[in-house]
Amino acid sequence: MYGRYTQELGVYAKEEAARLRESGQRRSVSERSRTFDLLEYDKGRCAKCRICTVRCQKFLISRVGEDWIFLILLGLLMALVSWVVDFCIAICLQAQKWMYGGLDSNVFLQYLAWVTYPVVLITFSAGFTQILAPQAVGSGIPEMKTILRGVVLKEYLTFKTFVAKVIGLTCALGSGMPLGKEGPFVHIASLCAALLSKFMSLFGGIYENESRNIEMLAAACAVGVGCCFAAPIGGVLFSIEVTSTFFAVRNYWRGFFAATFSAFIFRVLAVWNRDEETITALFKTRFRLDFPFDLQELPAFAVIGIASGFGGALFVYLNRLIVQFIRNQKAINRFLMKKRLLYPALVTLLISTLTFPPGFGQFMAGKLTQKESLVTLLDNRTWAKQGIAEEFDYIGHSQAWQHPQVNVFVTLVIFIVMKFWMSALATTIPVPCGAFMPVFVIGAAFGRLVGESMAAWFPDGINTDGTIYPIVPGGYAVVGAAALSGAVTHTVSTAVIVFELTGQISHILPVMIAVILANAVAQSLQPSLYDSIIRIKKLPYLPELGWGHHEKYNIRVEDIMVRDVRYITLNCCYRDLHNVLLTGHLKTLALVESAASMILLGSIERAQLQSLLSLQLGRPRRLEFIRERATAEKKRLSVVSNSDAEDDHRRASQEVRFQVRCHRELSTHFFVPLLLTGIAEWEEMQLDEQVNFNNCKIDPAPFQLVERTSLHKTHTIFSLLGLDHAYVTSIGRLIGVVSLKELRKAIEGSVTVKGVKVRPPLASFRDSGTSSSENEATELHNLWDREKRMSLPGEHTPPESDEKSQ
Amino acid sequence: MYGRYTQELGVYAKEEAARLRESGQRRSVSERSRTFDLLEYDKGRCAKCRICTVRCQKFLISRVGEDWIFLILLGLLMALVSWVVDFCIAICLQAQKWMYGGLDSNVFLQYLAWVTYPVVLITFSAGFTQILAPQAVGSGIPEMKTILRGVVLKEYLTFKTFVAKVIGLTCALGSGMPLGKEGPFVHIASLCAALLSKFMSLFGGIYENESRNIEMLAAACAVGVGCCFAAPIGGVLFSIEVTSTFFAVRNYWRGFFAATFSAFIFRVLAVWNRDEETITALFKTRFRLDFPFDLQELPAFAVIGIASGFGGALFVYLNRLIVQFIRNQKAINRFLMKKRLLYPALVTLLISTLTFPPGFGQFMAGKLTQKESLVTLLDNRTWAKQGIAEEFDYIGHSQAWQHPQVNVFVTLVIFIVMKFWMSALATTIPVPCGAFMPVFVIGAAFGRLVGESMAAWFPDGINTDGTIYPIVPGGYAVVGAAALSGAVTHTVSTAVIVFELTGQISHILPVMIAVILANAVAQSLQPSLYDSIIRIKKLPYLPELGWGHHEKYNIRVEDIMVRDVRYITLNCCYRDLHNVLLTGHLKTLALVESAASMILLGSIERAQLQSLLSLQLGRPRRLEFIRERATAEKKRLSVVSNSDAEDDHRRASQEVRFQVRCHRELSTHFFVPLLLTGIAEWEEMQLDEQVNFNNCKIDPAPFQLVERTSLHKTHTIFSLLGLDHAYVTSIGRLIGVVSLKELRKAIEGSVTVKGVKVRPPLASFRDSGTSSSENEATELHNLWDREKRMSLPGEHTPPESDEKSQ
Repeated sequence: MYGRYTQELGVYAKEEAARLRESGQRRSVSERSRTFDLLEYDKGRCAKCRICTVRCQKFLISRVGEDWIFLILLGLLMALVSWVVDFCIAICLQAQKWMYGGLDSNVFLQYLAWVTYPVVLITFSAGFTQILAPQAVGSGIPEMKTILRGVVLKEYLTFKTFVAKVIGLTCALGSGMPLGKEGPFVHIASLCAALLSKFMSLFGGIYENESRNIEMLAAACAVGVGCCFAAPIGGVLFSIEVTSTFFAVRNYWRGFFAATFSAFIFRVLAVWNRDEETITALFKTRFRLDFPFDLQELPAFAVIGIASGFGGALFVYLNRLIVQFIRNQKAINRFLMKKRLLYPALVTLLISTLTFPPGFGQFMAGKLTQKESLVTLLDNRTWAKQGIAEEFDYIGHSQAWQHPQVNVFVTLVIFIVMKFWMSALATTIPVPCGAFMPVFVIGAAFGRLVGESMAAWFPDGINTDGTIYPIVPGGYAVVGAAALSGAVTHTVSTAVIVFELTGQISHILPVMIAVILANAVAQSLQPSLYDSIIRIKKLPYLPELGWGHHEKYNIRVEDIMVRDVRYITLNCCYRDLHNVLLTGHLKTLALVESAASMILLGSIERAQLQSLLSLQLGRPRRLEFIRERATAEKKRLSVVSNSDAEDDHRRASQEVRFQVRCHRELSTHFFVPLLLTGIAEWEEMQLDEQVNFNNCKIDPAPFQLVERTSLHKTHTIFSLLGLDHAYVTSIGRLIGVVSLKELRKAIEGSVTVKGVKVRPPLASFRDSGTSSSENEATELHNLWDREKRMSLPGEHTPPESDEKSQ
Repeated sequence: MYGRYTQELGVYAKEEAARLRESGQRRSVSERSRTFDLLEYDKGRCAKCRICTVRCQKFLISRVGEDWIFLILLGLLMALVSWVVDFCIAICLQAQKWMYGGLDSNVFLQYLAWVTYPVVLITFSAGFTQILAPQAVGSGIPEMKTILRGVVLKEYLTFKTFVAKVIGLTCALGSGMPLGKEGPFVHIASLCAALLSKFMSLFGGIYENESRNIEMLAAACAVGVGCCFAAPIGGVLFSIEVTSTFFAVRNYWRGFFAATFSAFIFRVLAVWNRDEETITALFKTRFRLDFPFDLQELPAFAVIGIASGFGGALFVYLNRLIVQFIRNQKAINRFLMKKRLLYPALVTLLISTLTFPPGFGQFMAGKLTQKESLVTLLDNRTWAKQGIAEEFDYIGHSQAWQHPQVNVFVTLVIFIVMKFWMSALATTIPVPCGAFMPVFVIGAAFGRLVGESMAAWFPDGINTDGTIYPIVPGGYAVVGAAALSGAVTHTVSTAVIVFELTGQISHILPVMIAVILANAVAQSLQPSLYDSIIRIKKLPYLPELGWGHHEKYNIRVEDIMVRDVRYITLNCCYRDLHNVLLTGHLKTLALVESAASMILLGSIERAQLQSLLSLQLGRPRRLEFIRERATAEKKRLSVVSNSDAEDDHRRASQEVRFQVRCHRELSTHFFVPLLLTGIAEWEEMQLDEQVNFNNCKIDPAPFQLVERTSLHKTHTIFSLLGLDHAYVTSIGRLIGVVSLKELRKAIEGSVTVKGVKVRPPLASFRDSGTSSSENEATELHNLWDREKRMSLPGEHTPPESDEKSQ
């Protein structure tokens, strides 16, 4: 269903990136010096001209480094992509309608056309994505969230993925399935930013900085949402809420600048294409301005909010349930894994059969596309009161909600129920797709339902002042859309997005109230859709502290840290290294001064240690040893006897040669009896030598915490700095380690797991002042009589299971 | 003019807060245990009843700890405060109008009434604030920014300040001066939150957590803006942009929740008071929805944006110039300091004389209040085309812009120019006041001016498609207001505030474009108004990295760090302590293992060391020594002779008693000859003893950086964690220190100052990979042959001047 994240890939990518960066830097240095050389070399007649050219070039290159040029290019590019994708989707959908309309003589043929078209498109999309770049599957927001946390998922930002995502998304949305383009657009914008960055780094050197790239990715996320909905402000806020834990306000303008430019170009393209007369909202509404709603309608809006909260949580749950069901049913799973394209085809077949307009689709406005449904739902007329039939004839689309036998309320209810599970199911198809827009439409339908009920209940409005202000069900639809999409994504900024989408802000208070209530309910029941996918995909993440997280202030690092830290000492021998590498699976190891002092000096990556060890015991040194030994043997023999010398010597050197050849050709160990014991001895000797850390990369200042740091603060620091582990020290002495895993456990409440001490219930009443200073005094004493101490900490064998994640 | 911040106050406040927190914790523990004791004590007939009561109580107390209850209370309180303040201001302004209107028979009396009224109000406000709480002066946003960075400015959050701010603000705004209520409301909301927090801590213990309080203060800032403008979204965003450097997204909902609730109650109060029929925007506009603006009008909007950018920078510059002029002119300054109320009175007199409606005020709509001006400026009719006279009669206020002799353009220009310097001057008066609203009005007037010019230029609109869409100057006014206020405050969210204020979002793209351009121009010329005040008041701050800050990636910590770190070693004697305390003025000192190893173990505050030293050399130990010595003397004497013994003994003991009495009564040193040399010897001996750190509070994990950390990352970490200094270590060894001061210097570009090494110009081309590992190797070698090293780092006498700020 979803691609899995592998840790090794990330590490490899990191090293690769470092290598590339280094070589790039060297190149640019050498190029520049070459330019200067040239300048000095030919001081002929056109020297001035050359100097001028070089200066111009340098000026242009320095300009290319400016952020705003990058952001304008990004905005322009994304607006074009968004517009082209929209254009292609519209053509696809028109083609389906045209086929369906052209075959109206035969219902069976009509059905075949209605069903085959989306099945073909979705299957193509799934297959294309699968072959070209499986990373393009899904919305991409969870991955972006992980990447912005500092984890390198390099395959997610390649050109291949870009192509797969754009083409796959166009086909998937062109099929008319209930899928959205918003999530994928966040990913596409990030891809654009990454590729643009790579392209621009050909001109200047600034594009190679990691923290700058992260800032640009954050801006790109805003551009993605902004140019998808022509909603710059909402885009920036939504992308912040969805992808960031901590947001740098200095990065704010980047998002606004790029998203505004992108939204502007996106809408200007529509004007140039004669779709619109001027720049307006995407789903413009025309509610009355002077009296948008009555105060007494607020309870109804609150009800929409609360119900949307439950609905949102249910949607997330349902989505996860479907994924897990298919994963767990091994028989189904195995079958589907073999025929990877069968699952998408089956799901599409099911959904499009149910929406077939002459069939069941007639009860749920099946012939409307997603966009058309939304436009009709935000309509500012009241359907229930005036009756749909007489008024709806002049705009074609709204007719779809009308059915001769069935009430408009029933149509709405069927629409909501069917679309709900269809959307939850459709978003599990392995194609590039998002869930925002489907959820938004369902929310609008729910709001419209409540609004129509209110209009039927109070036909003359609620206001008692004499003037009749009839109820506007379209306003309820706006509120419902914002509330449900807010509940599913756990964001408040959907409120801003609806204002920008509809071009009206008059319902601001109802929308805000409903969105906040929906968030309150949904957040207490389920994680957000993106966090849910992060868990399913097992991406390296850190859960948020919940709403009522005040008990987190009372948990301290000492309660959750792992006390048996694996470490190496500065004067350890290779044998210790070997043992440490054998017993644990840690990614990084602490380097301490000595086992007695335990003073933390830095941390070393496992890979570095492995290379140290292989350098010491590797083939070059082994061969050297054999050669030396042979020479020594030769000398000895020549001294001992002259008669047998030649034979022996010949045999020994033959043996050596044989040994060498074996090593070279077969690389297996054919130990000739004479050398066998020698090699083993040599190995033992080598292992007993002291490690030389000179050629080893050491992180000289790994992040340190104190025992009494609260969980709340630890969480803040981990998410602020994107750490995956931190050492706990006390006056320089290493006493524990906290990794993402321990933190995750503590936040999720399962602090009773092995290796993690549970805090006594009255821990929060501890007097912090005195115990802390006593503690420090003890630590100091330990430092004082370092020599006399008998028991050294950290020398027990630690439990294996707790270290794998570090 | 502005209050000055003293470092000592902050330190004192910090200690005070710690003491209070501790005692509070102890009290709550003892209270709880008492409840349980009671429960066990009387197990009589109503035991069940009691248990039930206690449980209910406990449940209620646990609920009180929930964030949302706090936020609702805060929102409710602030809405009431905002509404009451508005109500009082309206009454004050009406009273002035009534007086002015009643005296229309005599122009001189009219002038007296028009001028005296504001002078009295402003003088009262200034005097009241000065006496009760000088901290209430000004907007309060700069202080909140500093407090949210982690600095404790305790006096700014007391009940006294609250009272002074609310009453002072009401009087100041009631005078009709060009002042705003938005900045002070941010401060008032924070005061409310702090006081509410203190009040609620009587029930539960959660309110004593520091990081929680900071979160609540951030939410309170949002509430302040939100209930001032009835703009919840804009409020949250504006407060984030203005007060935070890094924003925790998990804190987002708090702001939205409280601000929405507050804005809701604020508007509901207006409905209940029959001011409004239902909840709508504060300055509702009625622009047409279907064609808000033409694409070809965009250049005009861009011009507004760029001009506003320059205008905003000029405003900040002018404001600072006025403050500095008055401070620097010593004669004026001394005179004004004596008569503190003279300056406000003079300024008010000047401004109100110029706005006197029958006088010069007739050319600048002088009789309109700030609110009325804004309403008329956002009017959706065109003044220039239709002529003001015939249409303006039915709404009284707009007549003010009409003058029989003078064109409406001239009126607007005079209004803009006069209000510009008046607002810059008025905001320097020492009363609680903000500058947002005056700037907003000036921006609206400027936008209206451009809009009217466009309308006069293109009387039939620009659209070429046949349909006539006349230009809407009101839309230009909206754009201008957002752009100028955005430029002055360096925020983008003013765009959202105008949408919420006007209730229309149709001009979103022009507003966004103008705001971004205005920000780009203003940010490259001047700091924001709040940063400017921070600099004037010398609050502890960290400047932002500028827009085009890519050169900051190339500066490393090693280029800016101070290499001569003051440190103490674990086995140092009291003499070293004494010397270190005498030579430097550092707030904290590094504790290293030994001068040879330089391994950083922690940091100790200066105050702690001082107390250690005074413990060692203080009176109790001194007296003890004298007593001991006397006893020894006595023994010696009794051994040596029996005849002279009694005399000697009596004399010695008398001397001792005299000495003791002197110490007790006069506390001066009357050294009796015999003891004089003894005390000096004893002191020398004491100073040579090793320091016992057992009773000393040590920060065991001060923040550490590496030499190669970039300036960009250092800035991020400092602002993320609110540090004021960090040690630079290399594999455990202390090699330097970076404080806010060095960072500030480096950011502001003056890296050539004493004690700070300037980076070689080609430093950015250094090959990072190799030199780094070499460096580490060297460090390791240093560790290896620790004993053999001859030159120890950090033993030179460091320059004094560089350390005062640490």
